[in-house]
Amino acid sequence: MAQQARAQATRDAIIRGAATVFERNGYGLASIADIAAASSVTKGALYFHFQSKDELAHAVIQQQHELSFSAGATVLEQGRPALESMLLLCASLGRQLVTDPVVQAGIRLTTEVSNFERPITDPYRDWLNMFEDLARRAIEDGDIAPAVDPEMLAHFIIPAYTGVQLVSATLAGRADLLQRIREMWIVLLPGIVPAERYESLKGLSGLIPAAA
Amino acid sequence: MAQQARAQATRDAIIRGAATVFERNGYGLASIADIAAASSVTKGALYFHFQSKDELAHAVIQQQHELSFSAGATVLEQGRPALESMLLLCASLGRQLVTDPVVQAGIRLTTEVSNFERPITDPYRDWLNMFEDLARRAIEDGDIAPAVDPEMLAHFIIPAYTGVQLVSATLAGRADLLQRIREMWIVLLPGIVPAERYESLKGLSGLIPAAA
Repeated sequence: MAQQARAQATRDAIIRGAATVFERNGYGLASIADIAAASSVTKGALYFHFQSKDELAHAVIQQQHELSFSAGATVLEQGRPALESMLLLCASLGRQLVTDPVVQAGIRLTTEVSNFERPITDPYRDWLNMFEDLARRAIEDGDIAPAVDPEMLAHFIIPAYTGVQLVSATLAGRADLLQRIREMWIVLLPGIVPAERYESLKGLSGLIPAAA
Repeated sequence: MAQQARAQATRDAIIRGAATVFERNGYGLASIADIAAASSVTKGALYFHFQSKDELAHAVIQQQHELSFSAGATVLEQGRPALESMLLLCASLGRQLVTDPVVQAGIRLTTEVSNFERPITDPYRDWLNMFEDLARRAIEDGDIAPAVDPEMLAHFIIPAYTGVQLVSATLAGRADLLQRIREMWIVLLPGIVPAERYESLKGLSGLIPAAA
C-alpha cells in the first residue's frame, strides 16, 4: 500500500512537472528531460509511468478536466438556481486558470489542436452538455427567457468562454481573466434574462470576483 | 521586372504551401522538406526566401491578416450602418476560414500561442480597435443601446469569435462555422440593441449565410 501511494505521488509530481514545462515551453518544444527535471525524478522513473510526451499531454488534460469538473460538481452541489450556477462555474474555472499550473496547461493543450493526431473533444462535450442542462433548468426557473434556445446558448457560451480565456492568456498573461469573464456575463445577461427580471438579476455578474 | 514578379509568385506559392502543411500537421510537426514539397520548390529556393520555420509561420500569419483585413475594408467601404458592418465582418472572416488555407493556417497559428517565443498579439488589437470603433458608431446610429460599453462589447465579441471558430474547427472541422457565427449574433442581439428596435433589427443575423 505504501508503495502504491508512493507510485501515485510520483505520477502526480510528473504530471505537475509536465504541466509546468508544457505551459512554459509549449508542447512542441517541451522535452522529456525538462519534464523529468521539473518533476525531480529520473528519466527512467518517468518512463516507468509514461511512455511518451503524447501520453504525458493526455494525462495533463485528463487531470485538468477532473480538477475542473470536480470543482464544478462542488458548485452544483450548493443547489443554487441554475443561472447562478452557470456564472459560478465560469468563476470556478477562471480561478483555477489563474492559479493552477495543471489547469493552465490542460486548457492550453486542449485548445492547441495541432499537437495531437486527433483533436481533444470530450471536455468540450462535457461542458456543452452541462451548460445545456443548466440553461434548460434556468428557463424553467424563469431566470432565462423562454425564447432562448438552451442548446444554442450553451453552444455559444462554452466556445465564447474558450476564446475569452485564450485571448486573456495571449494579451494579458491571464491577469485580466476574471474581469473579462465578468464582462462576458455583463454583455450576455440583458439578452438572455426575461426583460422584467433584468433589474433583479443584473447583479449576478458580481458573483464573479475581480481577482482570484 | 519579370524576375521580381517571378520571385513574388514563388514567395506566394511557398506561403500557400506552408499554410497547407501547418494546417495539416501543426506547427510542431511541420518540416521544411514537407513545405518545399507542398510548394513545388526546392529546399534551396525556399531558404532563399525564408530562413526558418518560425519566419514562415510569421509570413503566413501576416498574409492571413492582410487577406482578412482587406476583405474587412471591402465590407466597410459599402458604407452600411455600423452594426450591420459588424455582422458582415464576422461573416467575411468566417467565409475565408471555411475556404482559404492561408486564412485557416494563419488563425490557427495565431491561437496556438505556444509555437512562438512571444505570443502574436497585433491581429487581436487591430480587430479589437475596429470593433470598438464600430460599436461606438452603432450607438450613435441608435442600433446599439447607449447603456452598452463599446470597449467591453468589442473586448467580448473578438475573443468570443476566436473561441467560436476554434471550437467549430475542433468539433466539426469548421463544417458548422457560419451557422455558429450566426447563432452567436442571435444570442447577442437581444442584449445589445435597444429594446424598442429589437423587432426591426433581429433579422440582421440573416446577413450571415448558412454556408460559404
